[in-house]
Amino acid sequence: MKGTMKAVRKLTPAPGADLVEIAVPEPGPKDILVRVKATSICGTDAHIYVWNDWAKAKINPPQTMGHEFSGEVVEVGKDVDDIKIGDYVSAETHVVCGKCYQCRTGHADVCQDLSILGVDMDGCFAEYVRIPAVNAWKNDPSLPADVASIQEPLGNAVHTALSTDLVGKTVLITGCGPIGLLAIQVAKAAGAVAVFTSEVNEYRRDLSVKMGSDLAINPAKQDVISEIHKVTGGIGVDVVLEMSGNNTAINQSLKALRSGGVLVALGVPDGNITFDWGNDMVFKGITIIGVTGRKLWETWYTVRALLDSGKIDVSPIITHRLPLEDYKKGLDLMVEGNCGKVVLIP
Amino acid sequence: MKGTMKAVRKLTPAPGADLVEIAVPEPGPKDILVRVKATSICGTDAHIYVWNDWAKAKINPPQTMGHEFSGEVVEVGKDVDDIKIGDYVSAETHVVCGKCYQCRTGHADVCQDLSILGVDMDGCFAEYVRIPAVNAWKNDPSLPADVASIQEPLGNAVHTALSTDLVGKTVLITGCGPIGLLAIQVAKAAGAVAVFTSEVNEYRRDLSVKMGSDLAINPAKQDVISEIHKVTGGIGVDVVLEMSGNNTAINQSLKALRSGGVLVALGVPDGNITFDWGNDMVFKGITIIGVTGRKLWETWYTVRALLDSGKIDVSPIITHRLPLEDYKKGLDLMVEGNCGKVVLIP
Amino acid sequence: MKGTMKAVRKLTPAPGADLVEIAVPEPGPKDILVRVKATSICGTDAHIYVWNDWAKAKINPPQTMGHEFSGEVVEVGKDVDDIKIGDYVSAETHVVCGKCYQCRTGHADVCQDLSILGVDMDGCFAEYVRIPAVNAWKNDPSLPADVASIQEPLGNAVHTALSTDLVGKTVLITGCGPIGLLAIQVAKAAGAVAVFTSEVNEYRRDLSVKMGSDLAINPAKQDVISEIHKVTGGIGVDVVLEMSGNNTAINQSLKALRSGGVLVALGVPDGNITFDWGNDMVFKGITIIGVTGRKLWETWYTVRALLDSGKIDVSPIITHRLPLEDYKKGLDLMVEGNCGKVVLIP
Amino acid sequence: MKGTMKAVRKLTPAPGADLVEIAVPEPGPKDILVRVKATSICGTDAHIYVWNDWAKAKINPPQTMGHEFSGEVVEVGKDVDDIKIGDYVSAETHVVCGKCYQCRTGHADVCQDLSILGVDMDGCFAEYVRIPAVNAWKNDPSLPADVASIQEPLGNAVHTALSTDLVGKTVLITGCGPIGLLAIQVAKAAGAVAVFTSEVNEYRRDLSVKMGSDLAINPAKQDVISEIHKVTGGIGVDVVLEMSGNNTAINQSLKALRSGGVLVALGVPDGNITFDWGNDMVFKGITIIGVTGRKLWETWYTVRALLDSGKIDVSPIITHRLPLEDYKKGLDLMVEGNCGKVVLIP
Repeated sequence: MKGTMKAVRKLTPAPGADLVEIAVPEPGPKDILVRVKATSICGTDAHIYVWNDWAKAKINPPQTMGHEFSGEVVEVGKDVDDIKIGDYVSAETHVVCGKCYQCRTGHADVCQDLSILGVDMDGCFAEYVRIPAVNAWKNDPSLPADVASIQEPLGNAVHTALSTDLVGKTVLITGCGPIGLLAIQVAKAAGAVAVFTSEVNEYRRDLSVKMGSDLAINPAKQDVISEIHKVTGGIGVDVVLEMSGNNTAINQSLKALRSGGVLVALGVPDGNITFDWGNDMVFKGITIIGVTGRKLWETWYTVRALLDSGKIDVSPIITHRLPLEDYKKGLDLMVEGNCGKVVLIP
Repeated sequence: MKGTMKAVRKLTPAPGADLVEIAVPEPGPKDILVRVKATSICGTDAHIYVWNDWAKAKINPPQTMGHEFSGEVVEVGKDVDDIKIGDYVSAETHVVCGKCYQCRTGHADVCQDLSILGVDMDGCFAEYVRIPAVNAWKNDPSLPADVASIQEPLGNAVHTALSTDLVGKTVLITGCGPIGLLAIQVAKAAGAVAVFTSEVNEYRRDLSVKMGSDLAINPAKQDVISEIHKVTGGIGVDVVLEMSGNNTAINQSLKALRSGGVLVALGVPDGNITFDWGNDMVFKGITIIGVTGRKLWETWYTVRALLDSGKIDVSPIITHRLPLEDYKKGLDLMVEGNCGKVVLIP
Repeated sequence: MKGTMKAVRKLTPAPGADLVEIAVPEPGPKDILVRVKATSICGTDAHIYVWNDWAKAKINPPQTMGHEFSGEVVEVGKDVDDIKIGDYVSAETHVVCGKCYQCRTGHADVCQDLSILGVDMDGCFAEYVRIPAVNAWKNDPSLPADVASIQEPLGNAVHTALSTDLVGKTVLITGCGPIGLLAIQVAKAAGAVAVFTSEVNEYRRDLSVKMGSDLAINPAKQDVISEIHKVTGGIGVDVVLEMSGNNTAINQSLKALRSGGVLVALGVPDGNITFDWGNDMVFKGITIIGVTGRKLWETWYTVRALLDSGKIDVSPIITHRLPLEDYKKGLDLMVEGNCGKVVLIP
Repeated sequence: MKGTMKAVRKLTPAPGADLVEIAVPEPGPKDILVRVKATSICGTDAHIYVWNDWAKAKINPPQTMGHEFSGEVVEVGKDVDDIKIGDYVSAETHVVCGKCYQCRTGHADVCQDLSILGVDMDGCFAEYVRIPAVNAWKNDPSLPADVASIQEPLGNAVHTALSTDLVGKTVLITGCGPIGLLAIQVAKAAGAVAVFTSEVNEYRRDLSVKMGSDLAINPAKQDVISEIHKVTGGIGVDVVLEMSGNNTAINQSLKALRSGGVLVALGVPDGNITFDWGNDMVFKGITIIGVTGRKLWETWYTVRALLDSGKIDVSPIITHRLPLEDYKKGLDLMVEGNCGKVVLIP
């Protein structure tokens, strides 16, 4: 496939991003080329856009941004036999090595030689994207393109929520960015009897209620710990899903957790975290589970099962659908936080 | 049983302890009275002896010190039917409520209404000790009294080591106090293929080798992380058993741990712990398991099985046996750290 | 509490049961006396009523029948401190010893010295019932008496369904007696994306659809294996909940189960079961989990959480409410199988 | 690599096998060619040799026999990048599809499109063997060739024994063929405090004692159930590793198992198995885990760790080393059962 395409690119090591015309990428022998039908904005894209410290250390411009998408396969490499032209796919955005100890023992989510789409290679804020064929996930044709695109962050929510048993349990979700919001429904589908949320941003706190939160706490004004004790008969929640990476939230959530409870941590702080390891974890017999990415491919099968069966309804979270040309508006929305999921249509 | 007995008591809220003559305690209807044959010194006893901040906040003198012991039952309360006079027992030192959510769901190790022998009530550095009958553990008559006494801290080591699967795994134990030392043998008996230890005190570092450590690192002089990477082919250890409660040790051990690994935390720091939550835990997919006390009664059955079968040999760890009168010498040894387990014989 | 009461009793070792007037039982020091508000009929009661081989071997008349109930505490033994007169309770019907290895290691569901209410001692088809205080479960006053009574079989369903992870999974339930019917809703609440049922009795097959079955198969007329393969894309179900104890059903369900799947077995056959151990289990990597009773007390907490939160609605299963005097009608209904749960009101 | 080689082949669908000269196989683009240094005889080879019903249904002559081996890589296909000429390898003998649900969710041991070396394709009783490169496992050069060859059945023993926690547990192994014998040491290395064996063949029963069995029972003359109860204080064993596929052994072992215990089943019966599902499994809360093959690649890492660390010593099990030409003697030994592991040297 020859020709050019529109792409949102980071051209220089500085804030901002540009919509430019570049050559359509050519797939290697094990790659596929996908015409992007929908692509959604992740917090990571916002970090690259504003050019924070993490982005400075990690990103090598010029590079096409974006990693969440769905689309139609238009070209396949000569060694590819599983994927056909016309297939409707999304992508696992972590390109894993398949050879390290972790990959070979069922833990590719922490592969030792990991590359990420839109971070370590050109991404999908474009009309076309090239990915390794093994990273493609075939969708049912009936799945809407925007929902198909957000399966990747939904996979984060599923991986996090399903890292511990939730049946009959109470759950506190700290941080209601898109993944935290998605986790509300996943937790309920997985058997949680009550899901509470803690979020400073009013828009997202309200959205958490739309997604099913039984109590949306404003940690800037309310005492999270006493609110949680109030609704759990003084016992504390059984499980915390930590999506904020915030030092205060982590300290609060450990105190809001009952003895013997579990905190699953997906949120990534900017720097160190400080907490009372002895009193708030050891003596309480608490387990903290660090989670990143998705389990390959259990998480994707579960995502499919939950969507297909109607056990979850992610539509309230897609708050904005914009043409690709409006990428700046979309990225600004994510930076401000007054949105759920923003989808760009190339 | 009437009369008086010798007892090592904390008489005033100040450093030190006194050997005094007091009345033999009278068992209530659900209690038993035990003639102490051996009692061993825990780090907690040393804290009470030196009167550190924790002790100041927790201990109400006057009170008999000590909680680890073995002995012969000499009297039983009227409602006790399981324990007979003449039984040879040790004690679970955590007196749990049996009524809280945690107790009723198999998690009495984190009981919400816990009392501890020698901390919240009179202890066993004495000729006789009174305990609730339900806290007694019947020993085989052939078990030496000193080994029977240290089953309680051995139980901590078993609870910690068995909180994650160790078969075919490499293990780093940070901190070689008595429980860390015991954990070396427990980890090997549980299938660990290599156990490495990190300890600043030379006496205890050497003792860790006697207990089976495959590499005893001095963190004051050696780089723990690079030493561990050297012996694990650059991968890192599969499991850390954290027994130090030390901020530096915790940071080192998280970095020495392979992605997807497990850190089990028993050590209790004096204050807060600060570490790189994102890079050293979340992105590495690491699980941290806080552990306290013993599982009732799985841990005790396992302790018995390991001792009876000869899978572990705890004798090297009992470095000092002293008459009760020499309690000050024993407590000073524990404060200095130049000892394994110190046993007092009343 | 003196006086007499009405009770449905097995008076002689023969088919049938009689409604007689007997003395109200006197609680011992650790017992409570409960005025029965609702009592429900279990398949076990039907076995005792028709006097089958199991009943002949197990039951010693004269004895009051019944074990499922809810009611108000009217008297407490002198050593009872947790339960008060006026408390609204249901009962764990398994009286466990608390002393065997299984009881002491979190497995009281397979206690080695078990007695069962209405089987090994007088039961609750009466105006009053005496139970050990430790077997009482306090209900929220707002819980309807008939629902409170069927918490015990609901506990069987919860124990069975929660013995394996169901999130995103497909489930086949073989046998739609009351526990199988309850398990439909429990499985869905626990995350199952589809629940299929197999049942020969038309009344119960229809009831399974009312309870939420996505496909109710008549194994007398349909090929269970091919039906299941049809609805699972040829893969087979992830999980079987075996509630029938029927040889044909067990063979079919093992073949309908995907490789790597799990069969949880609660149903008890009359005699032996014969199946292709090698091809249908070993080579498929299938796990079979035998389950009996309820986990003490995890299961009860989960039952409460599921009912209180509205995650399950058990009302469709209560098909008949009869005065205690109509016990024969109720027992006949259970023998015929044309009912869900039958509740008697004393 | 051109030329011919010696190979033990099944030439016709009838009992026996022939040593013939055939062309050295040519590796395809993703294959490697290995010069066999040692190859060991599995019970499966004996079945093919005697031409039992399973072999008749499964094997298509002419075909080279054998699947367990170690050797040196002498040629690699053009698409192979991980394996180099000169590498010293053994092989995972199950060629899995990598595409089915089971393969993609960490359960390749029950791949839905499985081929087996020496069963579905030419095997390794020959001077050279061709295998897919992804099936190669690189050995440390210091590992003896015969030990390297038996890593594959050792992997079966590891997969079986490690399917349940063994720390502090008692274990009964029913059937002491080579895998059962290997499982004795694996179970002990994994923390079992006592391993009992049941085997009718005297040679293998004696060998089980050499491998570490604490009690070797002759089920033809002794009552397995009462013997086990005698050595477990009447409780029964915690775990059964079922390696016999024998109906009587399975029934005995379920009765010898304590309530709440686990039976792991690797042995494959000729036909159906009949047992008391209700009394011997459901009411006892027993779990039965069907196991086949090895977990890819956890099992191989564990095999390596156990061998390298010296936690297990498999040498006593290699009872016969014969030149390839003596294959008939070796196969006859396996048919009779008076051997441990028989290794052929091409």
